[in-house]
Amino acid sequence: MMTLETLSTSKAYGGVQGVYKHQSVVTGTEMTFSVFVPDHPEGTRLPVVWYLSGLTCTHANVTEKGEFRAVCARLGLIFVAPDTSPRGEGVADDKESAYDFGLGAGFYVDAIQEPFAKNYRMWSYVTEELPAVIARSFPADADRQSIFGHSMGGHGALTIGLTYPERYRSVSAFAPIVAPSQVPWGRKALAGYLGDDSEAWERHDAVALIKNGARVPALFIDQGESDVFLAQQLRPELLAQVCADAGIACTLRMQPGYDHSYYFISTFMADHLEWHAERLRD
Amino acid sequence: MMTLETLSTSKAYGGVQGVYKHQSVVTGTEMTFSVFVPDHPEGTRLPVVWYLSGLTCTHANVTEKGEFRAVCARLGLIFVAPDTSPRGEGVADDKESAYDFGLGAGFYVDAIQEPFAKNYRMWSYVTEELPAVIARSFPADADRQSIFGHSMGGHGALTIGLTYPERYRSVSAFAPIVAPSQVPWGRKALAGYLGDDSEAWERHDAVALIKNGARVPALFIDQGESDVFLAQQLRPELLAQVCADAGIACTLRMQPGYDHSYYFISTFMADHLEWHAERLRD
Repeated sequence: MMTLETLSTSKAYGGVQGVYKHQSVVTGTEMTFSVFVPDHPEGTRLPVVWYLSGLTCTHANVTEKGEFRAVCARLGLIFVAPDTSPRGEGVADDKESAYDFGLGAGFYVDAIQEPFAKNYRMWSYVTEELPAVIARSFPADADRQSIFGHSMGGHGALTIGLTYPERYRSVSAFAPIVAPSQVPWGRKALAGYLGDDSEAWERHDAVALIKNGARVPALFIDQGESDVFLAQQLRPELLAQVCADAGIACTLRMQPGYDHSYYFISTFMADHLEWHAERLRD
Repeated sequence: MMTLETLSTSKAYGGVQGVYKHQSVVTGTEMTFSVFVPDHPEGTRLPVVWYLSGLTCTHANVTEKGEFRAVCARLGLIFVAPDTSPRGEGVADDKESAYDFGLGAGFYVDAIQEPFAKNYRMWSYVTEELPAVIARSFPADADRQSIFGHSMGGHGALTIGLTYPERYRSVSAFAPIVAPSQVPWGRKALAGYLGDDSEAWERHDAVALIKNGARVPALFIDQGESDVFLAQQLRPELLAQVCADAGIACTLRMQPGYDHSYYFISTFMADHLEWHAERLRD
């Protein structure tokens, strides 16, 4: 069993906000993540919401700016925030150190292209290894999990939630990349990590997954209308359309004036947590 | 009239979180600050809460981590966060670049010691110049202002509030330095900025101000019991005692398990804003 190192813990809203590090077998690197555990009666296990972050982020962005703790404390939700890529000595990065590929941009896939295949295995990390760590080390109820995320992390949440609908009771996103195969950020990342394997691309594209038969009962999306990435990279209308065709209840809220930042995310964080909490009741 | 440069604005909780820069006459430097303005009916003016930050901070720490926007939006409060010192080319710093003196550590005084006297005039900046900028450029009601802060900023809020009780309707603090003349952080800063002028020291020491007759109706303090600076630097019991002697209603809440971080501050931010809002009603 791998050791979990506690980097910091602070009391917040009656619970504990911690940051932890462990040696990941899957990525071959040390991985850092944060967990908020609300105050709870000894011996009880709490439902878990997984939050996947966007390009350039680590666990720290949402941990500091997400404004989730008050609501998680009130609703009794454990909040887990993984990193967005492997990091460290010897981990391959984009040649030009671009923000949208390589470090901070793992895109929640298991890379098969060299030199990324060795460490960039964020799909397996987020869906297998880290859930086992959380189940082992925190008072988490593995039967009650939901997943959401922002931008690239919204893409991760959608594709993971659509792939494992029996495991995640609900899926939502802030400004997600809904169809990476069709947009510049996604095409660069999928080509870089997966090469030209078109089936692999489709497994990592929410719109393609739904077209190919993946189903969840509902999706909940908030999207800022003043988000500079809306028209070129995010394109939520593609998700709304495919959900309409597939009979998936997709609530897409276009939010006038909001941008792509944590000021947008934090504003609607409570709505998402409430939505998940309803679906995480026993 | 000086120009105000908008560095960024983002919609948040229906209002606008902005970051602004201006050339300060008082400090002789460019100064950056943040303002949150809630959504409000055209033509109305809103009460203002001033938040003064602690050692090492800029406007950004509370702006990103303070979790104040939801409550300010609900209560209709403008939230202003100044920087903690002058900055830029030619601004003197501590010789050893220590975190507790010089840049990021202006201590809310007007320095009279060289080489700090030229730029380190945070008292006048926060009490005179910036309020004029806010009154001119934002829908602020100058007759309804309150002030609070954290640590060194709690010291600033207490000393400013005690000096101008007619201007600030209420004063509160998170983990404030209540008696800088008696603790290492304060003694270093007051000596460095004010020399050995004991009267100037007393004007910048909340406990000394109250001993010397300064009065406000009430103070509201939250202090984490697991704050590593509690016993040596903060010493809230000194404030509680002098308030008891002076007949000032001082609510000092010792919060078990909480540290000195923004996890502590954000947990109790809503309580402070509610407390100020009650006192800022027409």
